Order: sequence, then structure tokens, then C-alpha cells
Amino acid sequence: MSGALPPAAAAVLAGGRRAAARLLSLAEAGDSGITTDIKALYRAGGQARIIGITGPPGVGKSTLVDGLISQLRAAGKRVAVISVDPSSPVSGGAVLGDRIRMSRHAEDDGVFIRSMAARGTLGGLAPATGDAVTIFDAMGFDIIIVETVGVGQNEVDILSHAHIVLLLQTAHGGDDVQMVKAGILEIADIYVVNKADAPGSEKFARALAEVIAHGAPRTDGWAPPVLLTMGIEGSGVAALLDQIDGFFARQAAAPLAAQARQARQVRARVLALADAALRRRLGTAREAGLEALIAAIIARKSDPHELAAALVHSSVP
Amino acid sequence: MSGALPPAAAAVLAGGRRAAARLLSLAEAGDSGITTDIKALYRAGGQARIIGITGPPGVGKSTLVDGLISQLRAAGKRVAVISVDPSSPVSGGAVLGDRIRMSRHAEDDGVFIRSMAARGTLGGLAPATGDAVTIFDAMGFDIIIVETVGVGQNEVDILSHAHIVLLLQTAHGGDDVQMVKAGILEIADIYVVNKADAPGSEKFARALAEVIAHGAPRTDGWAPPVLLTMGIEGSGVAALLDQIDGFFARQAAAPLAAQARQARQVRARVLALADAALRRRLGTAREAGLEALIAAIIARKSDPHELAAALVHSSVP
Repeated sequence: MSGALPPAAAAVLAGGRRAAARLLSLAEAGDSGITTDIKALYRAGGQARIIGITGPPGVGKSTLVDGLISQLRAAGKRVAVISVDPSSPVSGGAVLGDRIRMSRHAEDDGVFIRSMAARGTLGGLAPATGDAVTIFDAMGFDIIIVETVGVGQNEVDILSHAHIVLLLQTAHGGDDVQMVKAGILEIADIYVVNKADAPGSEKFARALAEVIAHGAPRTDGWAPPVLLTMGIEGSGVAALLDQIDGFFARQAAAPLAAQARQARQVRARVLALADAALRRRLGTAREAGLEALIAAIIARKSDPHELAAALVHSSVP
Repeated sequence: MSGALPPAAAAVLAGGRRAAARLLSLAEAGDSGITTDIKALYRAGGQARIIGITGPPGVGKSTLVDGLISQLRAAGKRVAVISVDPSSPVSGGAVLGDRIRMSRHAEDDGVFIRSMAARGTLGGLAPATGDAVTIFDAMGFDIIIVETVGVGQNEVDILSHAHIVLLLQTAHGGDDVQMVKAGILEIADIYVVNKADAPGSEKFARALAEVIAHGAPRTDGWAPPVLLTMGIEGSGVAALLDQIDGFFARQAAAPLAAQARQARQVRARVLALADAALRRRLGTAREAGLEALIAAIIARKSDPHELAAALVHSSVP
């Protein structure tokens, strides 16, 4: 890709917040017309640290994100936040982002906060989240926080965009340690027990640390820590940022493992985009011939495997 | 596809339960070596009625399925059950299927029960479920029940294989009507309030019926009913089977809407297979050149959209 930049990409690279907001809306709507811009912006990026934060509702994610923004801003970092709610088809997804946006960072030019909800987009929110990351990265934000509720497959897809994943919990949950056992272990790099003034928090953190210690050692040599935070007072946030720095230092010291992780992330991102493209094609069936192929499958003259193979027949070597 | 049938497909078509069980295991493992057999079996099928059943844990799905099997067997129908648990990465998924299997139908040749759990299959359970449906359909089962927990995206994918979807609830849930409001409405054709002897069941059923009545009228002219059942006594099961018959009669009277639904289902099935194929390719990256393309993306000399477009570049017209 050479020559002149597409206009929207050029405007975003020049720091245009309005142009960025417009591209973000089109990404959220699953508009494939922005692909040329996103491609150009992707190639201009690659400097930002992308921090994924997940956890069940009510653990205080917005307050902690607010605290992270404050301390990162104090350190001179520019911060973008993408708040994704894959579970809400309508409006729920906007709540957390709005809550942060209405905070003291609202007037700060070094902060950009964006909510994304699954407003019936074909293809899900993972591709839109990837595009949003690309946009903020190209705009020169130092830190991009991707925040999402829960731990289902959709959330894992979304968090595949992050360089580091934080799992927030509180001692209130009761069987949360069980949940961690059930497979969440693999996605998180740092565990945070928030609202640490709640009774049982330290005990819960110890139980969590024990479960984590029983996991297989990671190829990158990183041992995921368990931290106690109180988001409202900002206590523990500095220690959390230290651990995040420590994680990136560890990644730099284990280049092979870090590369493997990057490759996994690229695969997840490519897959989300390819899935979305297939979903759009099959959903609308605008392409001539596709309707006839589907009719042949219904008539048992063809079969789903036949069409699936044709769809993923690829020009890639 | 003409000429001799592949051996495993031939054995399944001859009624071989062992051959079928082996194919089901390979489908569950995501083994693409069975594609030729599945393709042949798909073309031999198309007669079975596929009933999807979903609902949260503890609503009595296994007991109700057991009751359905009994009454269907009494009517001379052959019944297969596919019990899918997409949430369990290890063993949880086998529980319900085992519970049914251990019941009075265990020795009945007209019944085949199969559990499927997400044992780390690349590409998810939706393609495996589709293959299982194809196998049972080709074996001449009159009714195939696909049963799964929950109402997330994975479950919706799985239920896309069903001709009719039943959503089980109990009055215990409290905010279940809210859940129905939130978007589940669109996937269910019949609502069942099970354990109807529990206090509040009739009130809950009325509230549910009211929510449903406020939905947009369906293009197939079907108004989803709300039924009360007590799975353990089998009460309400006959009425449920009547409603299922009524639904299929309604579909026959609205051929255009039924065709549109079939086309939607084929699309969902093709998409699940194509997704799984892409996931396998990108996950293993055995194909020469793919690693180099991913490295170019990491180096920002290419971008994820570029590779995604190449992957779904299609020979389909």
C-alpha cells in the first residue's frame, strides 16, 4: 500500500478526533466501506500498549479504569478506552463507557473514551474492537484499554486484541475461584481482587493465588500475580501499573514466547474479520449464485460441507 | 456425488450403530477426515424432524426429554438425542446425556442418545452438532432432539440446526421474563414452563405469554404458545407434542416463510463449517506461506484485513 492516504485515515493520522469518532461509529456498525482506511491506519500503528480488562458486572471495572487513567495521565501518557458489551443487544453496553466519560477526564484531550455495544452488527464485536484499536493506535495513544464484561467466548475474542489481560474479581462472588479453575486461568496475565476492603478479600486472593500456582508454568516465564485494589480510593493502582510494566519487561526478555503470542493474536484478529466477511456474505446472499447453491443444499443435491469448502477456498498459498 | 458410498457412510446407512458411534466421536473431535462420509449421508437424509430444546440448568430438560422419548416411542417413532454442552470444556456436557441414557430407554433400539462436550475442539461444537444431525437423519430416525444449556451465541449456533426450538423455563428464575424480553424471543417457537407444580408457575406463564404477545407478528403466522409441564409425571408432554405437530402443520401452510427459515439454517450451518475450517487453518498454520503472511502483519508491512480478505476469497460465483 503506497501513495496517498485515504481521506479519513489521513484525517485520523493528523489527530482529528471527529474523524476518529466517525470511523469508530462505522466500525461499530460493521461497515466494510472503511476497510481501506483501517488498512492504512494499521500500517501506521504498532506503538500502543493494549491492556484488556474483564470481569463480572459489579466488580468495579469503571472505577478502576478511571483510576488507571488518572495515574497514566499524571505520568504523561495518552490513554484511549474501548468499552465493549457483547451481551447487550441494545443500550447496556454504553453504561460503563458513559460512566467513565462523565468523569473528570471528560475535558482532557489526552483521553478518548468509546463505548461499543452489539447493536445487531452482523459478525459480532470482535472485528469492530480490532478496528477501534487500530484507530487509537494510529492516533498515537500510548495506552489503549479494552474493557469488557464476562468471560465467555465473545469476550475471549475481544480480549485477543490485548497485549496483557487483567481479570477483575471481588470476594463477593463466592464460587469465583471455581470459575477461574474452569478455564479462565489461561486468558489472564494479572488477577485483581477489587473492593479489597470487603470482608474475605485477602482470603479470596490467597485462594486465587493457590489455584494459579497449580497451573502449568507459562512459556513466557511470567507468573500471573494476584493484586488487591480499592478502585474508589485508587489504592493498589500504582502497584498494578508496576506489575503491568513488569509484564512487558518480561515479554521483552522472552522474545520467542512474545512472538508466539503476537502471532496468536494476529490469527484471532484475522479469523474475526474473515468470520464477519463470511457472515455478511451468507447473511445477505447478494452474490449471484449463492441463493441457487443454498437451494441445492435444501434439495439435498448438494451439502453444507460443499459450500463451506467453496467459501474458504483461498488464494493464500 | 455419484458412484460407491464411502465405507463408513455405507455402514451407517445400513443401520450400523457402531459405525455411527465412531463417526459421532470423530465429528465431536473435529476430524475433517469424515467429510466425505458426512457429505454422502447428508444427501441421503432430509426426512427427520429436528427439535431443539434449550433452557438454563436445573429446569428439568433431561426429565422432559425422557418424557418426550417415551411418548414418541409409544407412537412408533424412532428418536435420537444429541445433548450438547458448549460451556463445559471437559466433562460437564456428558451429565445430561448420561442421565437420559441410563434411563429406561437404554435398551431400546429405536433410541440413540449421544452427549457432546466442548473437549477443546477447534472450531466449536456447532459443526459437530450439524454432523451428528446428518448422521441420525441418514439412519432414518424420525425425530432428532438437540438439547443444549443456556441461551448464548454458541447455543444459538447449535439451535440453528433445529426445525423447531423449545425454550424451557421454571417460575424459580425470577427475572427470566426479563431474559426473554432481552432477545431470546426470536429463537423459540414454543415456551415451556416446566415443574409447573412450583408456586407462581401459572403467573409466570401468563407474564411470559404477555411478553410474547407484544412481539412483532411472525412471517410464518405462528404464535408461540406457552405451555405448562411437569416432566416427572409426564403431564403436559402430550399437549407439547400436539403443539409441535401444530407448528409443523403451520410451516407446511406457509411455504415461503418455511423456505426462508430453511435457507437461514443452511447459511448458519455453512458458516459454522467455514468458520471451523478457517480456525483450523489459522490455528495450525500448516499451509506454507501463512506464517510469513502473519509475520508481515506483525511487522506492519501487511494488515489483518489483507489476510482475512485473502482467506475468504472464494471460488463461489
